[in-house]
Amino acid sequence: MGSLETERTTTGWAARDPSGVLAPYTYTLRNTGPEDVFIKVICCGVCHTDIHQIKNDLGMSTYPMVPGHEVVGEVAEVGSDVTKFRVGDCVGVGAIVGCCKSCRPCKADVEQYCNKKIWSYNDVYTDGKPTQGGFAGEMVVDQKFVVKIPEGMAPEQAAPLLCAGVTVYSPLTHFGLKDVAGLRGGILGLGGVGHMGVKIAKAMGHHVTVISSSAKKKEEAMDHLGADDYLVSSDATQMQEAADSLDYIIDTVPVNHPLEPYLSLLKLDGKLILMGVINTPLQFVSPMVMLGRKAITGSFIGSMKETEEMLEFCKEKGLTSTIEVVKMDYVNTALERLEKNDVRYRFVVDVAGSNLDQ
Amino acid sequence: MGSLETERTTTGWAARDPSGVLAPYTYTLRNTGPEDVFIKVICCGVCHTDIHQIKNDLGMSTYPMVPGHEVVGEVAEVGSDVTKFRVGDCVGVGAIVGCCKSCRPCKADVEQYCNKKIWSYNDVYTDGKPTQGGFAGEMVVDQKFVVKIPEGMAPEQAAPLLCAGVTVYSPLTHFGLKDVAGLRGGILGLGGVGHMGVKIAKAMGHHVTVISSSAKKKEEAMDHLGADDYLVSSDATQMQEAADSLDYIIDTVPVNHPLEPYLSLLKLDGKLILMGVINTPLQFVSPMVMLGRKAITGSFIGSMKETEEMLEFCKEKGLTSTIEVVKMDYVNTALERLEKNDVRYRFVVDVAGSNLDQ
Repeated sequence: MGSLETERTTTGWAARDPSGVLAPYTYTLRNTGPEDVFIKVICCGVCHTDIHQIKNDLGMSTYPMVPGHEVVGEVAEVGSDVTKFRVGDCVGVGAIVGCCKSCRPCKADVEQYCNKKIWSYNDVYTDGKPTQGGFAGEMVVDQKFVVKIPEGMAPEQAAPLLCAGVTVYSPLTHFGLKDVAGLRGGILGLGGVGHMGVKIAKAMGHHVTVISSSAKKKEEAMDHLGADDYLVSSDATQMQEAADSLDYIIDTVPVNHPLEPYLSLLKLDGKLILMGVINTPLQFVSPMVMLGRKAITGSFIGSMKETEEMLEFCKEKGLTSTIEVVKMDYVNTALERLEKNDVRYRFVVDVAGSNLDQ
Repeated sequence: MGSLETERTTTGWAARDPSGVLAPYTYTLRNTGPEDVFIKVICCGVCHTDIHQIKNDLGMSTYPMVPGHEVVGEVAEVGSDVTKFRVGDCVGVGAIVGCCKSCRPCKADVEQYCNKKIWSYNDVYTDGKPTQGGFAGEMVVDQKFVVKIPEGMAPEQAAPLLCAGVTVYSPLTHFGLKDVAGLRGGILGLGGVGHMGVKIAKAMGHHVTVISSSAKKKEEAMDHLGADDYLVSSDATQMQEAADSLDYIIDTVPVNHPLEPYLSLLKLDGKLILMGVINTPLQFVSPMVMLGRKAITGSFIGSMKETEEMLEFCKEKGLTSTIEVVKMDYVNTALERLEKNDVRYRFVVDVAGSNLDQ
């Protein structure tokens, strides 16, 4: 990819070390190759994973690192083999910008499970250079990893859908739950992914119960997000009464937690769908899954195909994400607040409206 | 159930206390109610669960207890509403003899998941009396929980199918694996259930790998049971080479064990199907399931409908179980040997050919 012409530079906001503080950083972009789309970033959502990456929580961070993987932008240039996009199109980029295109998952259009997938940032591209994310003026992305934002959908609304949205949409679709109206779903944890979970599951016609450790988000969950029910997991009586009542639970809790209280909420054949990357062992006893043929499973973002489908679904259903739009000079504060779960429910950085140089 | 007529007595071999030693025990049987089948026991398989029950390993045992839940017998009398069976039929009884018949699982013909199911022994029947199992001369069983043994299938061959067989057949069918020829399955643990797993999965046209902690069962697994491959789980190189290669694993290990080595063997969307009741917590880290959309699930015996299907399937495929037939006076030795896994692969007690009184 990339030609021999002079490379362009762009400015993004990068972490320099595990303090995770972002500050302006100028770097080169590859030239727009035949399959590439050159994108001027409009806005970019802030995901909890960004914090893990900039702070090297997973021990795999390379600096400088420009995070951001819920990117919406405008096409500014397309490569010679790009037919799907035109200059001026509003497009999105998610967590992945490359894959091998030949393995079993790639051939099955679930390239998010390709072992050679390339992350949008904190990874190395096929040209040997680091990938950099969406908290930047521009990006160059292989067209396979670019989606069109549906006509009429606001860029800042679309941004959180590209990771949080598809992360929920993908398992509901894959596990055959999407088109079954009347299913009873649980959403465990009400952060960026959880709030999308409520909205998407409701849009699928499900009866949605938000499960939370305290009652404090009840009004928010029911009145603002439209949940049908609210369950306080620390209330043994409520939990007992809700036993054997849910077809699935989307578990967005990103830290270690007991699984058995939630397994007991599931009906026969119910699914506990894990969304949180937790590197300390989760525990359960085997009768809890056997004696109800329950499944502990999980899912990881979604495919480009599912991303396109999900955007259309959200447009059709009039589904919007609940966001707080900030400028780039607020991003460090936003990251701090996100770490404390102090956001309703997703920060989106107005990249195009920010001065990226200071 | 049961009429007011004089009740009959029968003699079985019962445990009197958690030593688990079986000895003759005479008890009453209810009269054959309208829905009941009175069965003269021919033979009965010895399952690992029998050991747990007679030794009170689960803390829920009541004595005297006549174990045995892989029962084959001959119909000696039928109730007035019984149309499916006739005197002289060869029939089978498995682990369950009652259910509520009205809950969701019951209505969906998966009565093994009914919360009010009644175990074949060590349980209380609807008449308030203890249920007693198949290591006995006779049993009275509700026709719903009786299956016909297919014409031409030897009783001692059929016995292990009624628990071990259907325990494997049920999840393979339920999870949609039965009719997919060419799937690659793993069987973890080569006991009574595991050996049926190899045979049934092979009969379904799958490529079957036996996974074991040492190489010592390799010849047995491949030459005698017909497995296609054999994997030593303590050999890191072999395990590494087999990563991402299996569509499912039937995990029959009845004691605590790490799950991650086996999760890593699964392909995208692969299933780890737990069969062992293990009351200490099993562990895994969430990325092991998320980054491959794998499922940790389990299954518990099978329904009566599946039991009938499975018997027909085994007959059609000419599938036999590998057994060691013993007389009742050997049953305590058989239980000891089973506890040490010293049996190829299932003991079956020749009840009709034994003197039950001494």
